[in-house]
Amino acid sequence: MAAGSQRSPLAPVALPQLPEIEGVRLGVAESGVRYRDRSDVLVALLDPGTAIAGCFTTSKTRSAPVDWDKANLAQGRARAILVNAGNANAFTGARGVQTVAGTVGELSRLLGCPREEIFVASTGVIGEPLDEALINAVLAPTIEQATGDGWSAAATAIMTTDTFSKAATAFAEIAGHQVTINGIAKGSGMIAPDMATMLAFLFTDASLPAPVLQELLTRSVERSFNAITVDGDTSTSDTILLAATQKAGPLAGLDNVGDPRLRSFSRALDQVTLDLALQVVRDGEGAEKLIAITVTGAEDARAARRIAFAIGNSPLVKTAIAGSDANWGRIVMAVGKSGEAADRDRLQIRIGGLSVAKNGMRDPDYDESALTPHMRGREIDIAVDVGVGPGRATVWTCDLTHRYIDINGSYRS
Amino acid sequence: MAAGSQRSPLAPVALPQLPEIEGVRLGVAESGVRYRDRSDVLVALLDPGTAIAGCFTTSKTRSAPVDWDKANLAQGRARAILVNAGNANAFTGARGVQTVAGTVGELSRLLGCPREEIFVASTGVIGEPLDEALINAVLAPTIEQATGDGWSAAATAIMTTDTFSKAATAFAEIAGHQVTINGIAKGSGMIAPDMATMLAFLFTDASLPAPVLQELLTRSVERSFNAITVDGDTSTSDTILLAATQKAGPLAGLDNVGDPRLRSFSRALDQVTLDLALQVVRDGEGAEKLIAITVTGAEDARAARRIAFAIGNSPLVKTAIAGSDANWGRIVMAVGKSGEAADRDRLQIRIGGLSVAKNGMRDPDYDESALTPHMRGREIDIAVDVGVGPGRATVWTCDLTHRYIDINGSYRS
Repeated sequence: MAAGSQRSPLAPVALPQLPEIEGVRLGVAESGVRYRDRSDVLVALLDPGTAIAGCFTTSKTRSAPVDWDKANLAQGRARAILVNAGNANAFTGARGVQTVAGTVGELSRLLGCPREEIFVASTGVIGEPLDEALINAVLAPTIEQATGDGWSAAATAIMTTDTFSKAATAFAEIAGHQVTINGIAKGSGMIAPDMATMLAFLFTDASLPAPVLQELLTRSVERSFNAITVDGDTSTSDTILLAATQKAGPLAGLDNVGDPRLRSFSRALDQVTLDLALQVVRDGEGAEKLIAITVTGAEDARAARRIAFAIGNSPLVKTAIAGSDANWGRIVMAVGKSGEAADRDRLQIRIGGLSVAKNGMRDPDYDESALTPHMRGREIDIAVDVGVGPGRATVWTCDLTHRYIDINGSYRS
Repeated sequence: MAAGSQRSPLAPVALPQLPEIEGVRLGVAESGVRYRDRSDVLVALLDPGTAIAGCFTTSKTRSAPVDWDKANLAQGRARAILVNAGNANAFTGARGVQTVAGTVGELSRLLGCPREEIFVASTGVIGEPLDEALINAVLAPTIEQATGDGWSAAATAIMTTDTFSKAATAFAEIAGHQVTINGIAKGSGMIAPDMATMLAFLFTDASLPAPVLQELLTRSVERSFNAITVDGDTSTSDTILLAATQKAGPLAGLDNVGDPRLRSFSRALDQVTLDLALQVVRDGEGAEKLIAITVTGAEDARAARRIAFAIGNSPLVKTAIAGSDANWGRIVMAVGKSGEAADRDRLQIRIGGLSVAKNGMRDPDYDESALTPHMRGREIDIAVDVGVGPGRATVWTCDLTHRYIDINGSYRS
């Protein structure tokens, strides 16, 4: 199952038009590493002085590219991001480290920049050696043809099992300067906190230092990419990078994330990350329904999040929703198994805004037929109050359908 | 989907013949609570002096029957176990507590015993009030017709989505006295530690005090019922009870589980609990393959168990195995997401005894075609060494197939 299979019924109508961002040029190529007749390499070229921030998988078996990026994040500068789809260069031992060194070396030579300013990401099959020669062979022509308006091609080049390409954009204002944030992402299976086979690359012309970008990104990812799950499985390769070219400025002294002049930018960043994260869920393997789960009344936010994920990762909840069945007993079960404090006898559940259970039992006024139209829709809304504290969290997932099994019983990813 | 649907391809050839156990009589009845034309109530009558031990779900939303049993376990004696299938009496608030009081009250009146010596278990739909009148109406005739050889009927009466009835038996010897252990169980979905919609009732004529029984049972359950998973979902109602009628004796002074005279009994108990637990996995909803996962080299046994469950609960691993695909990259992913210490560069994976990966990469000698016969079989064996310590654990699960979704997209359980 590769890119190009039937488009998810939850896909947005069309890819948004992304404006150019000064200091960013994008080029794509066909390396032939795994796919035929499609682009599978993206090079994002960044003007000198670009600051970078990143968030990565917490997997203990993370890939060589993730190791490389994490090691080089502290210096805070980037001149290029190199992405390939089809081979994750994960669980490839010393050979995988050499592959990263090989492609980074070649790209830094072509750009005349320090190796540490090249960031890499790979997605696809695990455990197969990745031949750097195939990638290196396309780098020079890709740089040559890179342009500022290559967003759609870039979003397409990084896809694996995705059924549609994913992009989002937002404007913000920092102290009178208008700035743009563009993002592209890929991901459709192995999606869970922290992050899944999920790649996202965000670009802005904002003039902000790397430590501020990092803090804003970390907070934003927590409420977006780290609040989604498709199957509870976490990838070895998850990478989110945010590059700021510093062209919309210059500003100085914006080194505190609490600075009120950052509010608009922070909101726009949250908008882009959540938009992209929800597009990933909408492309969840086999997904036919998008499910939002809000938990309130938990001990704290962390507990609320764990309860919400216990619901969102429950195969029994997800298959019930696939069958348009408002099976709230399974939600009760999932709350119980989360291990977090919950007052069984004060538990309340609302689905589609309708009270289903309260005071620890079925709502006497609950009429299942009134819920049918909501359950048959594309977007399911579950709200649970567990009655013990002020903690709240929202997570998003999709239903579990036959197509998930079709896709994953045959695809070697 | 109720009892009687197509028998799991992993089912044992036939139900074993269980011998009678002195002091145990079994009766079944049709209450009509949910099912038509099948027995759905079991009463196990126990002679005076029977000792009892139990293990229960750790769910925070546990059912009223579980609350009742836990509260009465400490006194250590039992005269009857009352089980009904079709309605779990879970998430039924104060009404559910009254239902338990109602059935327990009636049965204790009929038997002339303290209410605390009646243990109850309910399985089936969550959140629907259970009408105790329907159950009370059948108690007197059920007691009347109870016999010592009713094991097969008992195992059938407690089924819900099970496709076959489950029983096991073993002999042991305690200080020269031969004793028998019989067990029956039900369960096929919502199976995970700790225990799932899993009911198991064990009976022995051994003459052992309740505290010794409890310690032996707790240890045995840890390596059996708490080492299986079908879907990672934990039920509100899991109950395992072990009743010892004290007829094979009398013995005295056997009050220490470390006593070597208990070795044979402990082994036989482990044999029965593991046999029943594996029957539950073999009846996992939609299961077509039984998967054993052994993790070695973990920090400690707890870490090994968490890694093994991360593999066993991974939808990506389970769908790959459903497709007979030796997709070991997904095993690497699952090890990584467990959060437990693992040395990526020393990781070893064997499937069906064949080395697939070692030293953190694909085994150079690995030939996928050699694994095909194993992957196409009914029993899949996965062994993972994570290279950091002495911890080891084995867990069992089944594959994730289209039938799981068929069953759970429509059944209101």
